[in-house]
Amino acid sequence: MGGDHAPEQIVAGARLAAERLDARISLVGDPDAIAACLGDHAAAGRIEIVPARDVIAMGESPRAALRGRDDTSMARAVDQVRTGSAQAVVSAGNSGAFMALSAMRLGTIPGVRRPAIAITMPNAGGQRVLLDAGANADCRPEHLVDFALMGSVYAEYTLGLENPRVGLLSIGEEKGKGNELTKAAHALLEAADLNFCGNVEGGDIFGGRCDVIVCDGFVGNVVLKVTEGAAELLFRRIRQVVADSEELRPLAPLLGDALRAVAGQFDAAEYGGALLLGVNGVSIVGHGCSDANAISNAIRFAHKAVGGRLVEHLREVFSARAEARA
Amino acid sequence: MGGDHAPEQIVAGARLAAERLDARISLVGDPDAIAACLGDHAAAGRIEIVPARDVIAMGESPRAALRGRDDTSMARAVDQVRTGSAQAVVSAGNSGAFMALSAMRLGTIPGVRRPAIAITMPNAGGQRVLLDAGANADCRPEHLVDFALMGSVYAEYTLGLENPRVGLLSIGEEKGKGNELTKAAHALLEAADLNFCGNVEGGDIFGGRCDVIVCDGFVGNVVLKVTEGAAELLFRRIRQVVADSEELRPLAPLLGDALRAVAGQFDAAEYGGALLLGVNGVSIVGHGCSDANAISNAIRFAHKAVGGRLVEHLREVFSARAEARA
Repeated sequence: MGGDHAPEQIVAGARLAAERLDARISLVGDPDAIAACLGDHAAAGRIEIVPARDVIAMGESPRAALRGRDDTSMARAVDQVRTGSAQAVVSAGNSGAFMALSAMRLGTIPGVRRPAIAITMPNAGGQRVLLDAGANADCRPEHLVDFALMGSVYAEYTLGLENPRVGLLSIGEEKGKGNELTKAAHALLEAADLNFCGNVEGGDIFGGRCDVIVCDGFVGNVVLKVTEGAAELLFRRIRQVVADSEELRPLAPLLGDALRAVAGQFDAAEYGGALLLGVNGVSIVGHGCSDANAISNAIRFAHKAVGGRLVEHLREVFSARAEARA
Repeated sequence: MGGDHAPEQIVAGARLAAERLDARISLVGDPDAIAACLGDHAAAGRIEIVPARDVIAMGESPRAALRGRDDTSMARAVDQVRTGSAQAVVSAGNSGAFMALSAMRLGTIPGVRRPAIAITMPNAGGQRVLLDAGANADCRPEHLVDFALMGSVYAEYTLGLENPRVGLLSIGEEKGKGNELTKAAHALLEAADLNFCGNVEGGDIFGGRCDVIVCDGFVGNVVLKVTEGAAELLFRRIRQVVADSEELRPLAPLLGDALRAVAGQFDAAEYGGALLLGVNGVSIVGHGCSDANAISNAIRFAHKAVGGRLVEHLREVFSARAEARA
């Protein structure tokens, strides 16, 4: 029921995913509204409806949304994972409320101090992980170490990168460069059981120096939005230059296809969802503006994370760390 | 003598600027090396050489570079402004050392707690100012207010924007969104004598919502590097798509020109230098990789800042604020 195009596009996305994946999908919310969108496309019994009467609106403060409201579609969806009825939950609704509900109802993995949002970014060679992309606006150095560990596990078991290299996002490559947070985190990361490759800069996010980039949630969210905004402005400028040129104008449709292909690599909806790492379950935070395709991609991504046993691997790594310390 | 292509490209840039602008240019450094690059292109007496024996290397720690070294080209160049022999100083050398030298030798404008690096960013309608882009990795809320005031004056008297709108870079538009720093700064900015338009997000840097964007120097530097990195990767991908397409390939040269025109708008060397705001003089921090064209643009930019009486206007605004408080 959450997101700018709910429930139509959410249901349509679930239908796409049910056709594409070997997965069963539960749609949680107002049964009548969902059934109306679903029509008779029940995808051979692979989609079921789980009723919930209440809906958390996009603009609600997460705090207000959580208080004594057990029958929201979001709470019921998270509960599907908590009770074992589902292995992953996807939402395009109020992201603050969804993160809070996921953390509260699923609980955090023992040893994880703060769950973090991990996103994948396009880069020269393929994809890389950046976290935290917005769950924690203020972080302490030890939180960044947790993010590094979680990002490593995610890169290895969901993206298939062997012994992933972890970089600390800073302003200057030398160890002493950065702010108080990154300088303290640098020392902790060097001592951690990680393939730590030191400080990286903003431009390295798109280069090939590392596979996992760690930063606080304020910086990570700014990076995500700046990347999307810069790409959007750039495409608009290029289209304008083409439209203004007599020689290039006839090729605009052809070129438009090429640009769209590249734009897709810079579009979160295309290259995968954002994952709340560190909770006891796979929890995917979709864009509010998700269309059917974005929802289908997010479900595919959830399926991949479950298949790679992401949560189990995270539990092992954090439990091994606790034992090494004991 | 500073920068990756010094002194050849620096001297060539000065020659270009001397031809284009009504300005006299002093080149500070090794007289023989400069004279060899200058040849007989003395641009009708508009270029003079100011000798300095020592050079601060690119990799030196700023602290080491400052101790008891008065005869470096950088120190002597800043002194040209301090003594009134010049009205602006431009360097492509060690930027940490250059900022420290500028602040120490020129002093800060009364009332300015921390000088900041202001850069211009391309946006939908033209240009906008972002600061701090790297001078202060850790900031207190009141520093962001100083940045906002300085950025406003800069936008008005150098870029010609009337009553510039100031936005606070955060993660969410609502007042309560952000980290501890931005939440505290938001309250101070509301109370300040500014055209404050509230929080803006990373994507708004490229939109039309405001003219001046304020953030701490860590975040600002990351934004700058991410923008450059994303643009670079995007152009590379587009070129690849064109090269891979039989229909588009013949147009690669023509399209290349169009892409270069757009890329120029995302290239700091083209759209102006970075300015150290808050010191008693115009101090331009060039990219280490500056070529002749970048240097010439930086000099033109310095000329514009001097012509707009930037430093005088900054002094007036900060003195008026001090009086209003007294």
